[in-house]
Amino acid sequence: MDAKKLARQKFEGAWEVIRDELIAHFEAQGMPVDAKEWYKRNLDYNTPGGKLNRGMSVVDSVEILRGRSLSDEEYLKAAILGWCIELLQAFFLVSDDMMDQSPTRRGQPCWYKVEGVNNIAINDSFMLEGAIYHLLKVHFRKEKYYVNLLELFHEVTHFTEMGQLVDLITAPEDSVDLSKFSLAKHNFIVLYKTAYYSFYLPVALSMYMTHIPIPTDISYKPSTSAGVTEPYQLALNILLPLGEYFQIQDDFLDYSGTPEQIGKVGTDIVDNKCSWCINTALAVATPAQRKVLDENYGQKNTAKEERIKALYEEVGMRERYSAYEEGTYQKLTAMIESIPEVKVVPTKEDEPAVLVRKVFTTFLDKIYKRTK
Amino acid sequence: MDAKKLARQKFEGAWEVIRDELIAHFEAQGMPVDAKEWYKRNLDYNTPGGKLNRGMSVVDSVEILRGRSLSDEEYLKAAILGWCIELLQAFFLVSDDMMDQSPTRRGQPCWYKVEGVNNIAINDSFMLEGAIYHLLKVHFRKEKYYVNLLELFHEVTHFTEMGQLVDLITAPEDSVDLSKFSLAKHNFIVLYKTAYYSFYLPVALSMYMTHIPIPTDISYKPSTSAGVTEPYQLALNILLPLGEYFQIQDDFLDYSGTPEQIGKVGTDIVDNKCSWCINTALAVATPAQRKVLDENYGQKNTAKEERIKALYEEVGMRERYSAYEEGTYQKLTAMIESIPEVKVVPTKEDEPAVLVRKVFTTFLDKIYKRTK
Repeated sequence: MDAKKLARQKFEGAWEVIRDELIAHFEAQGMPVDAKEWYKRNLDYNTPGGKLNRGMSVVDSVEILRGRSLSDEEYLKAAILGWCIELLQAFFLVSDDMMDQSPTRRGQPCWYKVEGVNNIAINDSFMLEGAIYHLLKVHFRKEKYYVNLLELFHEVTHFTEMGQLVDLITAPEDSVDLSKFSLAKHNFIVLYKTAYYSFYLPVALSMYMTHIPIPTDISYKPSTSAGVTEPYQLALNILLPLGEYFQIQDDFLDYSGTPEQIGKVGTDIVDNKCSWCINTALAVATPAQRKVLDENYGQKNTAKEERIKALYEEVGMRERYSAYEEGTYQKLTAMIESIPEVKVVPTKEDEPAVLVRKVFTTFLDKIYKRTK
Repeated sequence: MDAKKLARQKFEGAWEVIRDELIAHFEAQGMPVDAKEWYKRNLDYNTPGGKLNRGMSVVDSVEILRGRSLSDEEYLKAAILGWCIELLQAFFLVSDDMMDQSPTRRGQPCWYKVEGVNNIAINDSFMLEGAIYHLLKVHFRKEKYYVNLLELFHEVTHFTEMGQLVDLITAPEDSVDLSKFSLAKHNFIVLYKTAYYSFYLPVALSMYMTHIPIPTDISYKPSTSAGVTEPYQLALNILLPLGEYFQIQDDFLDYSGTPEQIGKVGTDIVDNKCSWCINTALAVATPAQRKVLDENYGQKNTAKEERIKALYEEVGMRERYSAYEEGTYQKLTAMIESIPEVKVVPTKEDEPAVLVRKVFTTFLDKIYKRTK
């Protein structure tokens, strides 16, 4: 078995421990048996089963920052933070699926579509979020960075909800209005709805856990000034555009990828999604092209979808994407290289680690020129 | 204008300040104008407009504990904590109404029923919750009890969700199964779904704010041992049964109150609610009476509803309620009197206050023998 698969199995093993602990807490509260069973099913149906990239990257980053493999105790702590991100993701997905009225997720019916669940899924999503703070309390209460952990989860959760709001009112599936779209709006949605919780959060958590000193007024805004050296600001400056790059790639693959590559048929055009592709087309369209976009975007009609795709070719979407990808790769590489290259020395559990390039190159290498 | 109305107006005035601050934060994040307007409407539609008992009792309790009226700055801080409970309540009500498919709330359509809102209300409910932690961060971050505030809100929110889960799976509107009911289940639901956030939370917040020392391992479980003197344990021991009493009264009034008294027609019987009345009836029913309950409870049928009401009279529901009320009043009074009576001396903002009986008698006097 390869190392990647082993790492995944180990991380999934930690879930069993964490899930059982959450259930035990439920039991200790005197919850009736049927409610305990319900909660267990909610946790297991919705939390594991995804790609687990976000959660596992906490463990990976802690290992990189420590410069050595982790003790069992350290591993479990890092894995708990990782699973807290997966719980946050589960909270978002259970509720997003209801808001989008999606039928399936990860190859099975969405939770709210499961027999007998229906709208109880709303409360179930809350309980997934609630589990995060219970785990943090039990396992991190004694750490100096405990309050920072709480604030980081609050802040990132709130940002994601803001991004979701803008997405929901900008691109409702049943009412197309392209005048609401713009590359600036797209950028806002992508950063708030995806980049903070998927890219910044796992790295920031690993930096907290390895005692990289946290500024009193930690910033959640990327800084444009040159010569940034504060590690969290550096991480934010790199990871937000990295997350944006990842999502733009996702948007582009939805249009250009074959079902064999991406494992699904892209539906962004017919679903009126506020995708990078439509926003790029809108930004360069002639009045005649704009008319074609208005008349054909966001409709459940194959001919209209094909018309949009033809227009994407006319405006040179593929070349524009390649240019974006190259430019972003160069920019990100330069930012990563602004981090002083230090020899990674293994550090003890209570010693502060030093931020190194590898935390970021690991992410970038996984993403650059991916085709699935 | 009477003092009560003035107090309410002052508290509502604080909402304007708080709401504007939340909007300003949204603006500072670069949110598009339509999203900012949406958020404002969400906040104003769902947060004020209720009885505000929970929120205002924070301010009242802080005044009682301080033994004097509050400075403007102190008032605003107490009011922020109060409005945080009202935001928590709004978060619950917006989502509960969707789960129950209710049409109206506080004399207007439920938020999800408002034109154009629909399922976006799910995300809107999250944003109401998110606002709590933003306010706490801005206004209480420098306080020693900040982390306690965060933990208290987490814990109480999680408890309420647990209570809601048990209620949802025990008493679904469309599937009657009285074997799931019991007075023990009713007690669990009432404590978790209502008493913690409506009764314990406001008092505990006022105790935190007046610097009554918080135990490291603060307990969220009522203690049955005699001679408790730790103030938070005392408060919990009194306020959970007080909250239970309030809810049982509510359940009883739904059955016994006239529309003139309670401002609505009771629907607990036809809605299959896990009410104190049905659970009391179940506990004392003969096999023949149990058959009547099984055949008539939880159905949208006036004749069946009348049959249940007749049975409630047969089993002496009114006498049973009176006996419960008297017994509870005596028990609560004795618990309150176990608090040493001290002369309340006005204390400065940074001095620890002392827990006094009046915090609890104020609640009890409002509730005892209320008929609406």
